[in-house]
Amino acid sequence: MSEIAERLLAGEQRALSRLITLLERGDPAAAEAMKVVDGHTGRAYTVGITGPPGSGKSTIVDQLTQLVRQTGSKVSIIAVDPTSPFTGGAILGDRIRMQRHYLDPGVFIRSVATRGQAGGLPRIVKSMARALDAAGTDLILVETVGVGQTELGIVSVADTVLVTLNPESGDAIQTLKAGVMEIADVYVVNKADRDGANQMASAITGMLHLSAVSPEWSPPVMLTAAHTGQGIEDLWMKIQDHREFLTASGGLENRREARRKREFLEAVEEALAQRLRDKVGNDSDLNNTLEEVARKEIDPYSAALEYLDSSLFSTDWLNSR
Amino acid sequence: MSEIAERLLAGEQRALSRLITLLERGDPAAAEAMKVVDGHTGRAYTVGITGPPGSGKSTIVDQLTQLVRQTGSKVSIIAVDPTSPFTGGAILGDRIRMQRHYLDPGVFIRSVATRGQAGGLPRIVKSMARALDAAGTDLILVETVGVGQTELGIVSVADTVLVTLNPESGDAIQTLKAGVMEIADVYVVNKADRDGANQMASAITGMLHLSAVSPEWSPPVMLTAAHTGQGIEDLWMKIQDHREFLTASGGLENRREARRKREFLEAVEEALAQRLRDKVGNDSDLNNTLEEVARKEIDPYSAALEYLDSSLFSTDWLNSR
Repeated sequence: MSEIAERLLAGEQRALSRLITLLERGDPAAAEAMKVVDGHTGRAYTVGITGPPGSGKSTIVDQLTQLVRQTGSKVSIIAVDPTSPFTGGAILGDRIRMQRHYLDPGVFIRSVATRGQAGGLPRIVKSMARALDAAGTDLILVETVGVGQTELGIVSVADTVLVTLNPESGDAIQTLKAGVMEIADVYVVNKADRDGANQMASAITGMLHLSAVSPEWSPPVMLTAAHTGQGIEDLWMKIQDHREFLTASGGLENRREARRKREFLEAVEEALAQRLRDKVGNDSDLNNTLEEVARKEIDPYSAALEYLDSSLFSTDWLNSR
Repeated sequence: MSEIAERLLAGEQRALSRLITLLERGDPAAAEAMKVVDGHTGRAYTVGITGPPGSGKSTIVDQLTQLVRQTGSKVSIIAVDPTSPFTGGAILGDRIRMQRHYLDPGVFIRSVATRGQAGGLPRIVKSMARALDAAGTDLILVETVGVGQTELGIVSVADTVLVTLNPESGDAIQTLKAGVMEIADVYVVNKADRDGANQMASAITGMLHLSAVSPEWSPPVMLTAAHTGQGIEDLWMKIQDHREFLTASGGLENRREARRKREFLEAVEEALAQRLRDKVGNDSDLNNTLEEVARKEIDPYSAALEYLDSSLFSTDWLNSR
């Protein structure tokens, strides 16, 4: 049995940090540990927070953490940094607000960069959440910055998804396009003390009535002013309502099973892609095909289909690790 | 031979539009046409323009188009819309500036959404560029919005990459992190009439001296005020300098061959992933594995590796299309 997993399950905080570092490095020891860790998950509840930049996600995470810590529950925060090489600066500023929790041993905070990932939520976030769960965290808050595909990927880890909106950003209808409505369990109109907050909340409620995404759970629209803490308790109660709804309806189990299946398929896809890349330079058939493509003897797409359907491609190389 | 490809090569504009529509739909007729089209490419030159939102990319594209059209050359513009469901609104406003070219038969404009793509540049952009090339376009301008991984993916289609920067956004050093310096062939500090433009240009030049990414081509830093056209002619001359440098050094051919190889590998990966997804629900071995994962009998990652290495996985299903 994996020693690090054993120490993590015994509640050793350093083992948790160590495992996450191993996960980040893609160390095989991490995969070994995760085999053990996986069986001890399922107790923690995961809340995803997503929304456009400037809508107060970090402040909401900070305030929820403060509130939940008062009950003695352990909280973990996974902050997913944006993929963009152009928008790195602003985000770090937001994170500074969470500093007050850094010295609290009941709060675990980790940032994850999406850089180099193929969009969606970085796979490591799912493994991290699982490790945190097994290590005894009660609540996992995953914050994603709304500048890429990551915000829709939040459903691949969260039990309840909060979508935060900024009344000053204007067009609520524009904001709610493109898949966001499908993933939101609770809307949070933050900066409720600014102009337009009530109108935005009404507009969203109106849209929800028209769309009726889920007949059983109608996503509530909560108003908060996170910098003062206003509305945070109500928001937390609503998150708990959603959890109870999911648990009672069987939806929680369904969501979690579907997520595990999706994660398996993604891991197969990634491993296939990795094995293909490992083959480049080491396989003369593949290299011949690549040279034919480079010389324009065949277009890349047709060449790919022909390669897969030819005898050049076999599972032999897939299995030869 | 593909009829649509034949008509496209004969210069029929409608055939080009039709082929792009077929490509967007993933129609098999598009793949057939691309086999033919591919052999007639290589004449067009592709310039990629990327940079953070608000740095004037669309205005620069607009002005370059205006300038190049005066020489009689045909221009195509591919505008890659952002992946984010939260930032859709602002972009469309930018595009309105390009309206003056819509009635010019020598200008072809098409938008591509990155939605649902796994990050990077949507594959269709490469096929579109190839179709435009074969159809007789001289210059292809590909504009990507700097809010995700797409801005780094621009190298997968562009011969020359412009990185636009906004002096008002502040920290040049922050902006130039994370791979941007590796892809920039020419820097454009736009809004040269605003405060900080010269300082930003100097800061970038200083960083370039320190890094020396390419010993042969030192990326120039150009100042433009695109809304007035200031600096656009110099920028265009610099793009042509880069083209001549690439052509003389053999770098152009190397870049294009490397791009074709990468595109082939990506197409193989995508086809593998698609065939795996097609298998879900239709393959009892795969479904059994998925159920084991859902029931937590094994963690998703280990299950993926075991599945690939087991006899359950064979190329039989890959080949059965």
